[in-house]
Amino acid sequence: MPNKPEILETKTIAKSRLFHIEQLDLRFSNGTEVQYERLCGSSNGAVLIVPMLDDDTVLLIREYAAGVDRYELSLPKGRIEDNEAIVPAANREIMEEIGYGSNKLYHLASLTVAPGYLSATTHVVLAQDLYPERREGDEPEELEVVEWKLSELASLLVHPECTEARTIAALFMTRERLQKEHSA
Amino acid sequence: MPNKPEILETKTIAKSRLFHIEQLDLRFSNGTEVQYERLCGSSNGAVLIVPMLDDDTVLLIREYAAGVDRYELSLPKGRIEDNEAIVPAANREIMEEIGYGSNKLYHLASLTVAPGYLSATTHVVLAQDLYPERREGDEPEELEVVEWKLSELASLLVHPECTEARTIAALFMTRERLQKEHSA
Repeated sequence: MPNKPEILETKTIAKSRLFHIEQLDLRFSNGTEVQYERLCGSSNGAVLIVPMLDDDTVLLIREYAAGVDRYELSLPKGRIEDNEAIVPAANREIMEEIGYGSNKLYHLASLTVAPGYLSATTHVVLAQDLYPERREGDEPEELEVVEWKLSELASLLVHPECTEARTIAALFMTRERLQKEHSA
Repeated sequence: MPNKPEILETKTIAKSRLFHIEQLDLRFSNGTEVQYERLCGSSNGAVLIVPMLDDDTVLLIREYAAGVDRYELSLPKGRIEDNEAIVPAANREIMEEIGYGSNKLYHLASLTVAPGYLSATTHVVLAQDLYPERREGDEPEELEVVEWKLSELASLLVHPECTEARTIAALFMTRERLQKEHSA
């Protein structure tokens, strides 16, 4: 197993309101020197929540996604605020995005989206035992909430609006966990 | 269902060798105007390949990931070149990264990684019936190839180096497809 490359220098090469592009000079353990670029996200990371209305029904949102300029069907998510822990952030986000809180939250996994060039981490939180509670979010329009059955995950995977790898990975992981719980 | 927001203006606000940050002025169908930022990737997109040595053994690579500054265990992937189709790009990438070509390639799905702010699309290609063929890639160091059993996916999901949502989603989709094939 090779040793990790040595970071010789990092330099900010562009910065906008949301993004921060860094240039890295790296030396690999075999001596090869390369220059990489990476994008630094919010250091707090994000949460992606799997809100289960019952053991088979998940609540998705249909939200405008500017990166691809169309609506995307995905799990609710949002950035973790300063001094906020993962689980409370997850509960706040579902209150804002789908109008539910949860009495049973579980940190299922921590995912990366493109570790080669993005530092961002997304924490997946399973939310069960939901209760209605609406908090004001900062969405520019009301989000459509869409119920889907985990037992019909196959049909979601061919839905043209459901493409996000994090959502798909989190739904499979949730189905796996709930199946295991039920067979235990 | 709301109408898609109108894009009033797009402007490039930063550009580096790899990244291109765009600022978007949007008007939602309810009249709300907002300014978003998004990152435009390679318009050709990328391929992520699931190379199966046999019906249970997948070949992963262990590669330095600059975004998170550690090694990541993931499926082989790479950018599609100009005028290259998805399936040939997938076959080229596995020749370069793991030293195999495939006689049976299947475009399983097209995923996004963060559709809210990234335009990038990743095409998942299942590669079976492998044969040894090595092509020169542009990796700065030799990639370690790691065999894993799909039947032991649960242990991969708790491996600290396997965090990428695309890899996890693609492995679940592959397992699902192969199980279905075998029960047919």
